Amino acid sequence: MTSRTQAAPLAVGVRRTDTTLSDGRALHYYDDSPGYADGTLVRALVDTRVLPEVSNRSTMRFDVLTGEWVALAAHRMDRTYKPPADLCPLCPARPGAEQGEVPADAYDVVVFDNRFPSYSGAGTPLAEVPATPVDGEPLFVERPAVGACEVVVFTDDHDASLASQPVSRVRTVIEAWADRTAVLSARAGVRQVFPFENRGEEIGVTLAHPHGQVYAYPEPAPRLAQQLHRASLHRTAQGGSLLADVLTAERRSGTRVVLSGERWTAYVPVAARWPVEVHLAPHRDVPDLAALDAGERDELAAVYRELLGRMDRYFDGVDRLPYIAAWQQAPVGPGRELGRLHLQLFSIMRAPGKLKYLAGSESGAGGWINDTTPEATAHRLRAVAS
Amino acid sequence: MTSRTQAAPLAVGVRRTDTTLSDGRALHYYDDSPGYADGTLVRALVDTRVLPEVSNRSTMRFDVLTGEWVALAAHRMDRTYKPPADLCPLCPARPGAEQGEVPADAYDVVVFDNRFPSYSGAGTPLAEVPATPVDGEPLFVERPAVGACEVVVFTDDHDASLASQPVSRVRTVIEAWADRTAVLSARAGVRQVFPFENRGEEIGVTLAHPHGQVYAYPEPAPRLAQQLHRASLHRTAQGGSLLADVLTAERRSGTRVVLSGERWTAYVPVAARWPVEVHLAPHRDVPDLAALDAGERDELAAVYRELLGRMDRYFDGVDRLPYIAAWQQAPVGPGRELGRLHLQLFSIMRAPGKLKYLAGSESGAGGWINDTTPEATAHRLRAVAS
Repeated sequence: MTSRTQAAPLAVGVRRTDTTLSDGRALHYYDDSPGYADGTLVRALVDTRVLPEVSNRSTMRFDVLTGEWVALAAHRMDRTYKPPADLCPLCPARPGAEQGEVPADAYDVVVFDNRFPSYSGAGTPLAEVPATPVDGEPLFVERPAVGACEVVVFTDDHDASLASQPVSRVRTVIEAWADRTAVLSARAGVRQVFPFENRGEEIGVTLAHPHGQVYAYPEPAPRLAQQLHRASLHRTAQGGSLLADVLTAERRSGTRVVLSGERWTAYVPVAARWPVEVHLAPHRDVPDLAALDAGERDELAAVYRELLGRMDRYFDGVDRLPYIAAWQQAPVGPGRELGRLHLQLFSIMRAPGKLKYLAGSESGAGGWINDTTPEATAHRLRAVAS
Repeated sequence: MTSRTQAAPLAVGVRRTDTTLSDGRALHYYDDSPGYADGTLVRALVDTRVLPEVSNRSTMRFDVLTGEWVALAAHRMDRTYKPPADLCPLCPARPGAEQGEVPADAYDVVVFDNRFPSYSGAGTPLAEVPATPVDGEPLFVERPAVGACEVVVFTDDHDASLASQPVSRVRTVIEAWADRTAVLSARAGVRQVFPFENRGEEIGVTLAHPHGQVYAYPEPAPRLAQQLHRASLHRTAQGGSLLADVLTAERRSGTRVVLSGERWTAYVPVAARWPVEVHLAPHRDVPDLAALDAGERDELAAVYRELLGRMDRYFDGVDRLPYIAAWQQAPVGPGRELGRLHLQLFSIMRAPGKLKYLAGSESGAGGWINDTTPEATAHRLRAVAS
C-alpha cells in the first residue's frame, strides 16, 4: 500500500523521501535533521487511515471576454475549514489525532498532494484532454483542469511561522520549492509552477499550521501571461529583458530599495498596487528556483527570512501580518526566455485593523487604487530591519 | 457661495438640480417626489459647513510588468471609516448632524463629488497632464490621476437598501446613472464611465447608508481594455460583436439564463469566477446607460430590482448579501464600437459565513478558482424568484 523510494540527497544536509498516503496521494519528506538527513534513519511509518477516494476532477472554462481560463472546482466547497488545533491535518499523526496527513511522529519539511485540489493529474498530455464546447456553443469551451496542487508544510510546530524558523530551515524550504519546481516542470501538460504562501485568516487561510502551496498550471496563469506579453513588447522595442531592466532601474534609482545583498535585491515596485508590497529578485538572470545555485539559495534563505520578519514588524501591534508570498517563475515551454524569477510579497492590511478590500474599482473594473505610496512603504520596510 | 441651476426635466417625473457644497464640490439632486420633480418646489438650502480644502491630487503610475495603470491616492488613507449612524455623512444634514453632505431635510436621489476621490479634475485635456518619468527612469512613468469620483445616494433612508426601494425609485437611480454617464463622458480626458455599487461590510464598505459610486477613468480600466482586445480579435476572426454573440449564445443555450424580459436577459456567465455572479445585458446593441431608450430604462428598473432581491434571498439566513454591481460600458473615444453595455453583479460570499478570498492563486497568479458551477448558480437564482 505504501511505496517508498529514497532520492539522492538534494543538497548538503537535505534528503528527500517519497511515500504514498492511503488514498494514493504522494507525500515527500524533505529532511534536514541529523539521522533522517544523512540516511541513517528512514521514514517507515505508514498511513493507516481509511480515506475516501479523492474526488478531484476540476474543469477549466475559457472566459472569452478576458481571454483567461477560470477553474471550476465544486468539490472544494467541502474542504477542511478552520479545524480546531487538535484536529489539524498538518500536525504529525498522533494517537487521538489520526486525521494528520503526515504519518510521522515528527518531521522537518513535508510536501504532499492536496486532498481538495483545484488542478490534478499533471502528466497527462494536453492532446488527451482537448477543449470541448459547452452546450455545443463554439464560443464556450471547457477542458479538464490538468495540473497539480501540493501542500508544503514548513515545520511540524503548529504555532510557529516561517519567519520564526532558523535560516537553515528556510533553506530547506527553498530546497523543497526548487525540487518541486523541477519535478512538476518535467510533467506533461505543465506550463507554470507557482510556489506561494497564504498567511493569515484575513486572506482566508483555513489552516493555521505554517504551510504554503505549489500549484502547477496547464497554461501560464493571467499574471504570467501578461508579463510575457509585456516582456515580448519590451524585447522588440528595446532589445533587453524587461524584468532585468526593471531590477536595474530600481537599483539605480534606489528610492524604493529595501535591502540589497550580493546576489539579491528587494524593492517596492514603482507601481505597487498593495498597501504593503515588496519584490525580491536575483541579480543573475534565472528562470526559476530550480536554476538557483547554492550561493543564491543560501543568501535567499537569509534575505527571505529577514523580509518575512519585517512584514511582522511593519505595523505596531500587528505581530503576524497577513500576507501572500508569490513566486513568479518563467513558464515551461514557449516564452520561457521571457520569464525571470522574482518574488512578489504583499499584504492586504493598510493599517492595524483595516484591510484593503478589492471592491468595485478593483474587482469590477480591474482599476487598482493604492492608498499609500511605494516610497513610503519602502521607507517603513527599511526602518523595521532586524 | 452656492450656485444653483435648474436643468430641464430628465424624464417623465425626474428633475435634476445642480448646486455646490461649501468646499466647491458639485452636488446634483435627482428628484422624483411631487413638488421637487415638477419644479413647484426648489432646492434652496445652502451648505453652511466650514470644510477643509479637498486634497485630491492622486497620481497614476504605469505598471510595466502588466501594462496597467495603478492609482496612488495616499490622501484616502484618512477617509471616513464606519461612522456611527448618527454621524452618517450621507444622511440629510440635520441639527446635531451637520456633518451631512446633503443640505436638505429630505431628498430622493443625490449625486455629489467624493470628498476623498481617487480620480479628480476631469475636464483637463490629457495634453496638459503628460506622463513624466519617476526618478528619471524611462521605464517608470507617472501622471496625475485625472478623472472623477462621484457618490450616488439612492435614498435618504439610512437603513434601506436599493432592493427595498420601489421600482420607481430604481428608475430614478437609472436616470441619474444615465445622466452622469452623459455628463462625465463629455468631459475632456475621460475614457470610461463606471457606475457601481459596493454593498456590505464584507467587501469593505465603510458607510452603511445605501449608495453607489461613479468613477470616470482617464484610460479604459484593465477589464474594459481586455474586453476591447478580445472583441477586436473576435471581430477580425468572426466579423461580429463579441458581447452580442455571447448574449445570443447564452440565450440559445438557456442553461444559465436567470430571467429574460422583452428587452433584457440575465444569465450566469459560462466562465463565472465568483461564487454568485450574474450578468445582465440589453437585447439591443447599446454602448452605455445614456443610450437606453425609455422602454429599456423602464424594464431595467424592474429587472434590476428583481435581481438585487434574488441576491438577498440567495442564501438562507443571509438577508443582505454583500455584492458588487459593476456597469461595464463602452469606452469614450477609440474602441467605442467594440463596447456594449452590460452589468456584472457578483458576490464574494460562497456560503453563509464563508467568503471567497482572493489569495495566492487569484491575487498572486491571476488564476481564478470558482468553488461552484455557473449552472448551479443559475439554478439557485431562478429558484429564488419573487
